[in-house]
Amino acid sequence: MTDRPHTPTLDLVNSPADLRRLSDAALADLARDVRSEVISAVSETGGHLGSSLGVVELTVALHAVFDTPHDKLIWDVGHQCYPHKVLTERRDRIRTLRQEGGLSGFTKRSESAYDPFGAAHSSTSISAALGFTMGRELGMDTGDAIAVIGDGSISAGMAYEALNNAGHEKRRMFVILNDNEMSIAPPTGAMSSYLSSLYASPLGMAQKMAEGFEAALPGPIRDHARRARQLVTGLPGGQGTLFEELGFSYVGPVDGHDMSQLLPVLRAARARATGPVLIHVCTVKGKGYAPAESSAHRYHGVGKFEVSTGEQAKSRPNAPSYTKVFGETLADLASRDPRIVAVTAAMPEGTGVDILGKRFPSRVFDVGIAEQHGVTFAAGMAASGLRPFAAIYSTFLQRGYDQVVHDVALQNLPVRFAIDRAGLVGADGATHAGAFDIGFLSALPNMTVMAASDEAELRHMVATAAAHDSGPIAFRYPRGEGEGVPLPDRGEVLEIGKGRVLQEGADIAILCFGAHLGECRKATARIEAQGLSVTLADARFAKPLDTSLIRRLMRGHRAVITVEQGSEGGFGAMVLHHLANSGQLDGRCAIRTMTLPDRFIDHAAPDAMYAEAGLTFIDIAATALQAAGVEVGGIGIPAE
Amino acid sequence: MTDRPHTPTLDLVNSPADLRRLSDAALADLARDVRSEVISAVSETGGHLGSSLGVVELTVALHAVFDTPHDKLIWDVGHQCYPHKVLTERRDRIRTLRQEGGLSGFTKRSESAYDPFGAAHSSTSISAALGFTMGRELGMDTGDAIAVIGDGSISAGMAYEALNNAGHEKRRMFVILNDNEMSIAPPTGAMSSYLSSLYASPLGMAQKMAEGFEAALPGPIRDHARRARQLVTGLPGGQGTLFEELGFSYVGPVDGHDMSQLLPVLRAARARATGPVLIHVCTVKGKGYAPAESSAHRYHGVGKFEVSTGEQAKSRPNAPSYTKVFGETLADLASRDPRIVAVTAAMPEGTGVDILGKRFPSRVFDVGIAEQHGVTFAAGMAASGLRPFAAIYSTFLQRGYDQVVHDVALQNLPVRFAIDRAGLVGADGATHAGAFDIGFLSALPNMTVMAASDEAELRHMVATAAAHDSGPIAFRYPRGEGEGVPLPDRGEVLEIGKGRVLQEGADIAILCFGAHLGECRKATARIEAQGLSVTLADARFAKPLDTSLIRRLMRGHRAVITVEQGSEGGFGAMVLHHLANSGQLDGRCAIRTMTLPDRFIDHAAPDAMYAEAGLTFIDIAATALQAAGVEVGGIGIPAE
Repeated sequence: MTDRPHTPTLDLVNSPADLRRLSDAALADLARDVRSEVISAVSETGGHLGSSLGVVELTVALHAVFDTPHDKLIWDVGHQCYPHKVLTERRDRIRTLRQEGGLSGFTKRSESAYDPFGAAHSSTSISAALGFTMGRELGMDTGDAIAVIGDGSISAGMAYEALNNAGHEKRRMFVILNDNEMSIAPPTGAMSSYLSSLYASPLGMAQKMAEGFEAALPGPIRDHARRARQLVTGLPGGQGTLFEELGFSYVGPVDGHDMSQLLPVLRAARARATGPVLIHVCTVKGKGYAPAESSAHRYHGVGKFEVSTGEQAKSRPNAPSYTKVFGETLADLASRDPRIVAVTAAMPEGTGVDILGKRFPSRVFDVGIAEQHGVTFAAGMAASGLRPFAAIYSTFLQRGYDQVVHDVALQNLPVRFAIDRAGLVGADGATHAGAFDIGFLSALPNMTVMAASDEAELRHMVATAAAHDSGPIAFRYPRGEGEGVPLPDRGEVLEIGKGRVLQEGADIAILCFGAHLGECRKATARIEAQGLSVTLADARFAKPLDTSLIRRLMRGHRAVITVEQGSEGGFGAMVLHHLANSGQLDGRCAIRTMTLPDRFIDHAAPDAMYAEAGLTFIDIAATALQAAGVEVGGIGIPAE
Repeated sequence: MTDRPHTPTLDLVNSPADLRRLSDAALADLARDVRSEVISAVSETGGHLGSSLGVVELTVALHAVFDTPHDKLIWDVGHQCYPHKVLTERRDRIRTLRQEGGLSGFTKRSESAYDPFGAAHSSTSISAALGFTMGRELGMDTGDAIAVIGDGSISAGMAYEALNNAGHEKRRMFVILNDNEMSIAPPTGAMSSYLSSLYASPLGMAQKMAEGFEAALPGPIRDHARRARQLVTGLPGGQGTLFEELGFSYVGPVDGHDMSQLLPVLRAARARATGPVLIHVCTVKGKGYAPAESSAHRYHGVGKFEVSTGEQAKSRPNAPSYTKVFGETLADLASRDPRIVAVTAAMPEGTGVDILGKRFPSRVFDVGIAEQHGVTFAAGMAASGLRPFAAIYSTFLQRGYDQVVHDVALQNLPVRFAIDRAGLVGADGATHAGAFDIGFLSALPNMTVMAASDEAELRHMVATAAAHDSGPIAFRYPRGEGEGVPLPDRGEVLEIGKGRVLQEGADIAILCFGAHLGECRKATARIEAQGLSVTLADARFAKPLDTSLIRRLMRGHRAVITVEQGSEGGFGAMVLHHLANSGQLDGRCAIRTMTLPDRFIDHAAPDAMYAEAGLTFIDIAATALQAAGVEVGGIGIPAE
C-alpha cells in the first residue's frame, strides 16, 4: 500500500454536484488532487494511466460545465475514465480498478448513471452521442450529449461515419477531440498528419484562431467567453477545416491542461451552440507524472508501480508470451519468404508484428484503427501475390467480419489471420473477450480454422499458415504467457484437418480445441483418479474437422467431451453437426460440449474468469464423469 | 428477344487490346455502341442498368488509357460493370447476366482476369487498390491500381479508412470518384453536401479548376494534357479539398460523359502521378436512356423491360413482399408507440422503412452506407429511451457485427434488428446471401433471435420485437414475396422462446426455423406418402430455444430434422448443443441438421439455389427417411 496523497479539495467532492459548487480556482486545485489520486490508485492496481492523466483537467472542466448525468458524457474507448470515476461517486472503489469484483477499467452502464454508454472498443462515442441527441430531439428526458474521442480513435471509419451523419442531422451536440498525437502506438494515417497541421502550419486557420484566442486570455473571463462564442458560432468566417466541411463548428485548438482556457470555451460552447460542435483540445498523455511523460508509450497500460520512481513491478515470465512467439516465428518465416507481409490495426506491439517490422520495415503495415480496411487491404495484397498475415485480436476481428466474409473467404484469397487474445482475457473484461471467432470463422466456406494449445503448437501453426497458399486460414491463441513447453527452432507444417492424440484411454475422451489443453490435462488426471482411463486429444482444427479422429473417439469411449475457449456455435457445434449428419449420435457414446456460457463474464484474472465460466478442470472432469454415467461424490453432477 | 442494336465499332472490339488501337473519335463511337448494347442486354436480363449507363464513357476511357488487365481496374460494388464486361471478352455472354450459369451481375475474380478484385458490397475498392499498389511496391508483377467508387460508397467509413491509409503510404495509385449524386437512394450525410459544394460553390477552388479546364478544351489534345498534368501535379496550388487534406492529389470535376475531357485527364494522370490521385468525375446515372434518366432511382435495379418505352415487365405478385409487411407493421406500431424509430443504412425503400418515413419523417434515420455507425447510433437511441429498429439486410449486418456485440448485446440495450434478405437471395448471388446471421447472433448473450416462416409470422414478430423492452432482439425473413397466407390486421406478441406445432405425428419430426416452412410442408407430404406420420413444427426462436418442444419431439419420434436457411453453427447447432448437454442424444431418436452447405452458392433463382444447396423438399424428405431408417427407392440415401 502506498501512502495516500494529500487531496484536500478532492476530499470535499463526492459527485459532480459538489464539484459544480467550486470556484474556477478551486477547480484547478481539484484537478491537481485528482491527478495525485489517480497516480496513487493505479500504482496499486495497474491500468491505463497515461490516457487518464491526459484528461484530468478536461474531466474536471466537463463536469463543471455540463449537467452530468442528465447531460450524457461519453468517453470513447473508456480507458481514460479514471479521473471521471474518481469524481462520480466511485472514489471509494477506485483502488479496486480492474480487480475481480471491483470497478471496470472502462466506462460501464451497469456501474454508474454517470456512464451513459459503456465502451472499450474504439470510435463508438460519436455514434452513441448522436443517438442520445436524437433521443432528446424526440422527447426523451436527456440533456446534451458530449463525446470525448482521441485523435487515434477519430481516424477510424466508424467515427467518420458518425461525424458525417451528425453533420447532416445538424443537431446540437458536442465532440471533444482529445488530441495527444498518440493512440496506443504513435498514430499513422493521413488524418493524423492533418490534425497536426491544424496547429503546426504557420498559415492554417486553426493556428490563427489559437493565436487570437491566446491573445485574449489575459483579459477577464467574459472576454474569453465572448471570443469563444464567436468561435462556436463561426463569426470569424474563414476557410473550413475538415470538420467544418463535414458540418461541424470547429473550436480550437485549446490547451487541455489550462483550466482558464477549457472552462470559458466549454461554457461558451454550451451557452451558444445550435448545431454540432467539435472542440479540439490538445493534451499530453501521461501529463503531470514525469515517468509517464518521458516514456515512449506514456504509460498507456501499466502494471503496479512505485509512485516515487515510476518503476513497474514486473513479475518474471515463466514462458515467452504467445504474442512474442507469433512475432518471432513470423519474422523468421518472412526472412525466407519475401511474399510475407503483416497488417496490424494500430497494434504493432500488442500483436508482435513489430518484431517483423524491425527487420523489414516496409513489410509491416499499420493501418490505424481500421479493421475493415485492414482486412480488405490484406485481401488486395493477397490478390497481388503477397501473403499477408492480418494480426488482429479476436474481439477486434469482429470489426472486420464482413470483409473476412466478402473479400477474403468468398474470393478464397490466402490471407492468414493471426488471432491473438482468443478466449477470456482478464482485466480488460467482457468487452475484450475473444469469444465468438471460432463460430463466425468456421461458418465460412473456404476458411481453415486452427487453435494453438501451447506456444510450440503456435509456432507450428504460423508455419502451417505460411505454407497454406490455397485459401484463407486462421489461428487463434490466448493472451499471456505460453505453457513453458520446449520451443522448436522452426515450426513444422501441420497436415490440414488432422488432430493429435496425446494419450490413449478407453473410457472417456477429451477433445480440446486450443489453449485449454492444460486444464484438460488436469481434468484427465482427476478422472483417472476415479479409476477410468482417458484419451486426451488436441483437435488443432475446427475446420476442417478431423473426422476420422472423431469417429475413433466416438467408437472407443463411453463419453466424448469437447472443450474450447469460445462460445456455443464454434468447435463443439461443428463436431455435433458432423456427428448428427453422419449418423454417429447413436447413443453408444455420450457427448458433451464445453464452451463459454451464455453470459458475459466480468473482468477478473483469467483463471477466475474461467472458473466463473464453468471451465475449470474440475468442471471438465465432473462433466465427463457424469456423461459417462459415473456418480462421484463431491464432483459429480446429478444425472438427469 | 429484342432486336439487336447496330454496333459497328463495338463489333470490332473483343478485348481492351482491340480498344486501345482505336482513335479518340472512334472511342466515342465505341461508347455509343456499348451503351446500346448494355440497354439491349439488360432489357432481356434485368439488372443494375442505371449505374452501368452512367459509366459507359468512363469505362471506355479507363481501358483506353490504362493497360488492363496488368493494371488493376477495381469497380466498387461492381454493379456498374456491365460496360466493362462487354469490353472485356464477355460480350458473348452479356445476355446471360444474373441468370443461372451466366455472368455474375458483379465483378468476380473467377470470371475474368479483368476482374482483379470482385465486389458486391460497397466501399472496398480503395482498400483493395492499395493492396495491389503495395504488392507492386514489394515486387509483385502488377501495374497501376485504379479504384472506381461512387459518391455514396465513398461516404462509408471503410472508404475513409482506406483514403487515410493511402494518403499516408503516398504511393502512386488512382481513385476515380464517380459522382452522380446518387447511391441507391438519394445520398445523405454531410460528405454528400460537401461533394456537391466542390462543384456548386461559385467561390470554390474546384469550380475554378473546372473553368480553367473547360476553357482549355477547344485547343489541341496536348494542351489539355498539359493542363491536366498541372492539375495532377498540383502546380496551380491553392486551398485544399478534403481529399488533399487526406494526402491525395485532387483533379476535377471532370464531365464523365465527355471523352475529350476524360481521355486527356486520365492520360495526364497516368503519365505524371507519383502519389495517390483522386479524379472527381461527374456522371449521370442512367445517362443516355431517357426512361432511366427521368426515373427517380435512375433504373438502379430493373427487371426485364421494353427498350422503346422503358416499360418494365412486372409479374403480378401473389402476396405482399416480406419487406412491405415489415414496413407496414412497423409504421402501424410506431403510430401507437412514439418511442419507435428506425435506422437504415442507405436502404429506406429496400428495407421498407420508407413506409414509416412517409408517416413520421423525423423518426426514420438514413445514416448512409454506414452499418457500423448505424448499429451504435441505434444503441445510443435505445440508451436514451427510444426503441429503434435497425433494418439491415443479413449480409450487410456483417458490417456492424462488432457493434452488435459490443454496443448492443453487451449493454443489453433494446435494439430490434429487422434482418431482411435472410437466406439465399437469387440473382445477386453469393455475395448477398444471408447465410451467417443465425449463428453470429445466437452466439451472443442477451440476444433473442427469431425467424419468420411466413408474412403473418413476420407481422407477429415485429409486434413481439416492439414489445421486447428487456434487451436486444432480432428477426430474420427472406427476400421476395410472402406465402400468401392471411394477414392479421395486427401482430400478436409471441411468447419468447416458444415454437408452434403445425401438425402432430409419431414417426418423424421436422423442426423448421424460418422461411423454409413451405418446403418442409411439401417434405411432410412426401414422407407421409411413404406411410409415416410427421410432426411439423415451426421453431420461431433460435434463441432462446423451446427446450420443452425439442424434448417432446426427441421423445416422440424416430428422427428429428432441423431445417434452416443458414449455415452450420446456427439454429441446428443450438439444438444440438442443448441436446448434447442435457443428455438427450441417447440414440433413441436420430437427429439431422439441414443447413446451407459449406460452399458459396452462385446466383440463380432462389429455388434453384436451394436445390444446389441440397435443401429442396425432396432432400428434406430423403434425409428424414434415411435418419428414421427407412429405405425408399429413388429418394433414399444409402444408409451408412
